[in-house]
Amino acid sequence: MKRYEQLADEIADLIGSGTLRAGDRLPSVRQTSVSRRLSPSTVFEAYYLLEARGLVRARPRSGYYVNAKPVANAPQQPLASAPPDRSVEVAISDLVFEVLGSVRDRDVVPLGSAFPSPTLFPLQRLARDLSSAMRELDPWRTVEGLGPGHETLRRQLGLRYAAEGMALDAQEIVVTNGAMEALTLSLSAVTQPGDLVAVESPTFYAALQALERLQLKAVEIATHPRSGVDLDALASALDRHPIKACWFMPNFQNPLGSLMPEASKQALVALLAARGVPLIEDDVYGELHFDARRPPPAKAFDRAGLVMHCSSFSKCLAPGYRIGWVAGGRFAQRIERMKLMTTLAAPIPSQEALSRYLQRGGYERHLRSLRQSLAAQRDVALRLVAKHFPQGTRVTQPQGGYFLWLELPPEVDALKLHRLALSQRISIAPGPLFSADHERFRHCVRINFGHPGDARFEAAMRTVGRLAGNLVRG
Amino acid sequence: MKRYEQLADEIADLIGSGTLRAGDRLPSVRQTSVSRRLSPSTVFEAYYLLEARGLVRARPRSGYYVNAKPVANAPQQPLASAPPDRSVEVAISDLVFEVLGSVRDRDVVPLGSAFPSPTLFPLQRLARDLSSAMRELDPWRTVEGLGPGHETLRRQLGLRYAAEGMALDAQEIVVTNGAMEALTLSLSAVTQPGDLVAVESPTFYAALQALERLQLKAVEIATHPRSGVDLDALASALDRHPIKACWFMPNFQNPLGSLMPEASKQALVALLAARGVPLIEDDVYGELHFDARRPPPAKAFDRAGLVMHCSSFSKCLAPGYRIGWVAGGRFAQRIERMKLMTTLAAPIPSQEALSRYLQRGGYERHLRSLRQSLAAQRDVALRLVAKHFPQGTRVTQPQGGYFLWLELPPEVDALKLHRLALSQRISIAPGPLFSADHERFRHCVRINFGHPGDARFEAAMRTVGRLAGNLVRG
Repeated sequence: MKRYEQLADEIADLIGSGTLRAGDRLPSVRQTSVSRRLSPSTVFEAYYLLEARGLVRARPRSGYYVNAKPVANAPQQPLASAPPDRSVEVAISDLVFEVLGSVRDRDVVPLGSAFPSPTLFPLQRLARDLSSAMRELDPWRTVEGLGPGHETLRRQLGLRYAAEGMALDAQEIVVTNGAMEALTLSLSAVTQPGDLVAVESPTFYAALQALERLQLKAVEIATHPRSGVDLDALASALDRHPIKACWFMPNFQNPLGSLMPEASKQALVALLAARGVPLIEDDVYGELHFDARRPPPAKAFDRAGLVMHCSSFSKCLAPGYRIGWVAGGRFAQRIERMKLMTTLAAPIPSQEALSRYLQRGGYERHLRSLRQSLAAQRDVALRLVAKHFPQGTRVTQPQGGYFLWLELPPEVDALKLHRLALSQRISIAPGPLFSADHERFRHCVRINFGHPGDARFEAAMRTVGRLAGNLVRG
Repeated sequence: MKRYEQLADEIADLIGSGTLRAGDRLPSVRQTSVSRRLSPSTVFEAYYLLEARGLVRARPRSGYYVNAKPVANAPQQPLASAPPDRSVEVAISDLVFEVLGSVRDRDVVPLGSAFPSPTLFPLQRLARDLSSAMRELDPWRTVEGLGPGHETLRRQLGLRYAAEGMALDAQEIVVTNGAMEALTLSLSAVTQPGDLVAVESPTFYAALQALERLQLKAVEIATHPRSGVDLDALASALDRHPIKACWFMPNFQNPLGSLMPEASKQALVALLAARGVPLIEDDVYGELHFDARRPPPAKAFDRAGLVMHCSSFSKCLAPGYRIGWVAGGRFAQRIERMKLMTTLAAPIPSQEALSRYLQRGGYERHLRSLRQSLAAQRDVALRLVAKHFPQGTRVTQPQGGYFLWLELPPEVDALKLHRLALSQRISIAPGPLFSADHERFRHCVRINFGHPGDARFEAAMRTVGRLAGNLVRG
């Protein structure tokens, strides 16, 4: 047992015995670190673990508190994945397209969707900024905006990095057609067909699709539902396979919602730097944190310029505007050139609108309300899982984003559950979507809880839980 | 001598002898076809040739007229290209990026630009449509617009095809991030790294860049500055090389401005269909015709679904909006899926604005005025070439688009001319940009005349002509 697990167990005992009661504040990380002679990161790990077990909860800028209403029979969290140690050709698209075709139908409850509800975003405010920006547009900007993208927007992105404590030359930022283009350009910039790329296990299916399209092979790395990529597993995979790049989501991984602790991110960057392996960092959920502070991306620890930090406004501000970007480190120019050769440029109206929106302020206020809304809905979703899903179901407790990852009892075939749910006009994202060869996660599903306004959510969760229960009972 | 050349020479003699005078109308194609017992296409070829020689000029919906003011010492047109019969690895990007970096500077006269003046477009009108569309936007459309693209916009594109006499299922249209994405997705859909692709000679450098990026090899096909790809040369290349696809611009090729006669397009499609070779048709200049009628694309003759017809609004309506599309024939679904794996979707604001603009009408009126403006400027540009460029210069007489292709005397090194011009704050596009290995067109340049409002144009043409003259004289 590791030291943080020991500490967590001791505190859990204090809660179990009633020494620490609902609402009590745990000693601060610093206090405990000093009193127990442990490193702060070990204490953090222990507190994370307690939180993962549903025993404590973090409150922004305040600390950790014993949960006021521990959920009765709260489901456990899933264990870390254990993918086989080999590289695999990716052949996933047919399944993805089959499953996701259903998600776009408005009459289907979108538990399987990759997108949060579009009603969460200030689309009217953006429309006003778009309108005024385009009426005042100097026509020549439609030509000058080629290349790396809108100057003002790039400067504002640079300022946001700076506000998070990251010194970054705005010149290394390339504006793209959404994060998807940022990620695929980054991948193209550092790989050749046939190359091996390390991904998390489970992996966001769009990453697998990008690998498939570029004829790359996936090496799936064991990933913990709370703390993300297992660095020991990664180091060992790097030893045994000629891995050319990693594609990871350190913040609120899709589908697990896992969050790599800062120390792990730092260690990840160091590990890769020592071997000269580039990291493609997908950080599209980074702004959707439920804790007070935005978790830094791995890019924050990058000194070698090997991290390509990719993000977008699609999940946190402006769905459909298709504006993403990559801070490409030493690969920035290559990425910019590849963009010129694939889509030439990102759309001017979208860039003008976002630039104006960011200049006028209000983004932080919007983000705060969005985060609160998603955090509250996470709790609703967890309660519904505990109440309606079959015994033995494990579920993640994400600290950001809008996905739950459920490990159902082994009798439940997720693809069958998907078909049953769809016949009730409910979509889910079945586990096999998230592995390169469809072979794993056959009894897992990803549930989107990012639709707080959708009155159908509770009934849909009840239905899916009941359908899963039926499959358990045969 | 071919029959159309004979006919052209006879008519030229009539003009030379004063039998046909300035302003006289030539007999209609039908009349001449009947009276001479020639096929209409032969008569058309003859009239084209006379036009190419500067002796006659087509007037929309009226016919061919003897030129009122034949340019004294009018330069001849360039001859057909004669590329070597081999495939070449493409390695062009550094040169392209070096040359084109300069074009974006507003203080440089953009003779080297690939874009027409943004002042030619109804950007204010589009801004109003954008504004009203986005204020009324149903938020859910930001999610539903994924997949092949905006339903209404696709239907309107389908209607435009129908208006041009092409029956096309709107379902085969995929909306993309500009024509560049349409073209590269089409190319990806039908090739593997290492494959051979036939291109025109000279070729638009972005096509060469796309080949380079996808690790494809180019087979350059002889191309005539008036009538486009030489079909005999193509047939022979198809016999000798395992060509997997063609990427051609039958309408107003960039840089030549060549226009394939309808009969040639039909023969091209038949030739490729017989061998099962797909055609990627870049038709971004198709709307910019100076004759009355829009020339049909090769797609109009496609029965086998092998033609991927790519176009966009960037050159004719909405620069910077980044909306293109491809009518992908039998490859449509594959292209749609590849789009989902690369950029996911085209921007909603741009799609909404264009859909509303097209619905409200006025596009045809805008296009008519745009075409007139470019046609008039073509004449200005040709006069300036005749007046200021060294003797022996050959120049195309494009019937659409906004490029001239100049073949300068062999003493003129176009890269040297480019550097000299740039030191005078004038850009040009030197010939080597347009061949896969930089080896050919060393004394050619492409000149953009699509900036009718730019008062600097005349002086810039005089300067470049003088600089070229200096190079001739050593």
